[in-house]
Amino acid sequence: MQLSEIYEPVKDGLVQVEEQFNLLVEGKRDTFPELHQMLRHVLVGGKVVRPALTLLAGRCYHYDLSRLLPMATASELLHIATLVHDDAIDEADTRRGRATVNKLWGTDKAVLLGDYLFARAGEFAAATENIAVVRLFSRTLQIISSGELKQASSAFSLKQSFDQYLERIAGKTASLMVMATESGAILGQAPPQGVQGLRDYGYNLGLAFQIVDDILDFVGDERELGKPVGSDLAQGTITLPSLLLLERQPRDNPIEKIFRNQDKQENIRLALDMVRNSSIIEECYSMAADYSVRAAGHLKQLPESQARRCLRALADYIVKRNK
Amino acid sequence: MQLSEIYEPVKDGLVQVEEQFNLLVEGKRDTFPELHQMLRHVLVGGKVVRPALTLLAGRCYHYDLSRLLPMATASELLHIATLVHDDAIDEADTRRGRATVNKLWGTDKAVLLGDYLFARAGEFAAATENIAVVRLFSRTLQIISSGELKQASSAFSLKQSFDQYLERIAGKTASLMVMATESGAILGQAPPQGVQGLRDYGYNLGLAFQIVDDILDFVGDERELGKPVGSDLAQGTITLPSLLLLERQPRDNPIEKIFRNQDKQENIRLALDMVRNSSIIEECYSMAADYSVRAAGHLKQLPESQARRCLRALADYIVKRNK
Repeated sequence: MQLSEIYEPVKDGLVQVEEQFNLLVEGKRDTFPELHQMLRHVLVGGKVVRPALTLLAGRCYHYDLSRLLPMATASELLHIATLVHDDAIDEADTRRGRATVNKLWGTDKAVLLGDYLFARAGEFAAATENIAVVRLFSRTLQIISSGELKQASSAFSLKQSFDQYLERIAGKTASLMVMATESGAILGQAPPQGVQGLRDYGYNLGLAFQIVDDILDFVGDERELGKPVGSDLAQGTITLPSLLLLERQPRDNPIEKIFRNQDKQENIRLALDMVRNSSIIEECYSMAADYSVRAAGHLKQLPESQARRCLRALADYIVKRNK
Repeated sequence: MQLSEIYEPVKDGLVQVEEQFNLLVEGKRDTFPELHQMLRHVLVGGKVVRPALTLLAGRCYHYDLSRLLPMATASELLHIATLVHDDAIDEADTRRGRATVNKLWGTDKAVLLGDYLFARAGEFAAATENIAVVRLFSRTLQIISSGELKQASSAFSLKQSFDQYLERIAGKTASLMVMATESGAILGQAPPQGVQGLRDYGYNLGLAFQIVDDILDFVGDERELGKPVGSDLAQGTITLPSLLLLERQPRDNPIEKIFRNQDKQENIRLALDMVRNSSIIEECYSMAADYSVRAAGHLKQLPESQARRCLRALADYIVKRNK
């Protein structure tokens, strides 16, 4: 299935999410032109996987757009807010092939824009008028930020285990996917096993998604990715491919040298080559596929529907994507 | 009245707010020692004016601590989160006489700690199980962050009006006081005119509070303040005293030179002296007193009670404080 087919059952909702973004952007055109520019920069033309997850999860039960729409919007806003802060913290120059907010407006304004987006996201979450969903929203931001703090604490450290890696990607990526699917289930009035099934689906989908992201940082096409390959290593972040490389060659490893800032560019190139010329990427893909299969497995607790088939297809799709 | 007398009707609640903070800090001692250290640094031994406002507002009607306590905690957490981000953005070294989070742990971790505190604050707000309060919380964060963005946009600009100054301090300080009092009123099941009265009280109290803060940045005692005087000017922020100084002496003004980074330290000293040796401080105090009187006036809509008398006394107190 193509993405457009996967999103088919909720395409009306996705159009409305985009309208919400446009309203948000346009609402500041006259009153605060600089904020308008910043919002337009981050909100126009992004991916929509998280809103689609919320809407599809709801579509599996009761598709009440008046409740689902604010939460689908909140899912994407929260995601974008964390990206804006991530880029500010990493001092990244590009994201999705475009200059980052911190690059264009400075770190200080990037931090404040992120805060503003958190607030707008929170407002949309509150607009669902469902306290369980609001709590899920706050808990998710808490998991993400403490996960990022852990990542910042362990940056440039070689002593990391697979479990720590999993914990980290669960915190920074899977938690948001869980929020997207679980909130959709709650607002769609799913029964408890439906909420649990969609929660577990989101969690495993998130892990698969992030592993593929981490693979693409080694083997992706820079133009497709819109950022330089090897940027995780440059920022001192150990991901699955580098974890496996360290495991195979614990001594005299280029990663060690990158983290010691020794011939950094040359050693990044060397590490990328070593990973590419090994079976590491294959192994990583097999792990991602494993989580994708687990994600799909949890959908069995849901009633059969087109939305369920699309969620199943999405789990396949995200492992095969190249950007 | 002394502060201890003002807080008397809600001292049980304030003790419990502190217990909530201790739980939050201690909860990370074993699982995430660095976060534990950071939380201890920002949460132990702060001011409690915002929690006191929430609790006293509730005390004017129905003092249901199970609802008021999470919101009183959220008020202070949201405040602290914004301070952590402010200091990170301003690259400030000290706050309340101690090193800032960004100074001790770096800007990146300060941003993430702020995010984490926003999330915890949001979680406490959600624990009130009151959607109106949750919305008020998100709206407040939105007002604060867009206010700070406006401040960042206008930094080092001399073209600022009194109205812009008011809008700025309303955004960054009064909004949080409004949240504190209005949420207390809502959770205390105040009738509409009680909610409005406490809202207006919080707004005017916040303006008075911030004007005094801005005065103290010119005439305060560095040891009492715990930060260097003149720091607003150093950061390019025009406040009421500097606004009045610019009005009196539009040409060849030291502020102009500070903002052009010309003999910065010397010109800060000069600006401080010029303000101190004029009637500007007196004028500023008279404006602060005016807002304080307005704040007290709005309390007349509330039924007579000890809590109301204490809120009235607080409006007097904050104009007379020296730190």
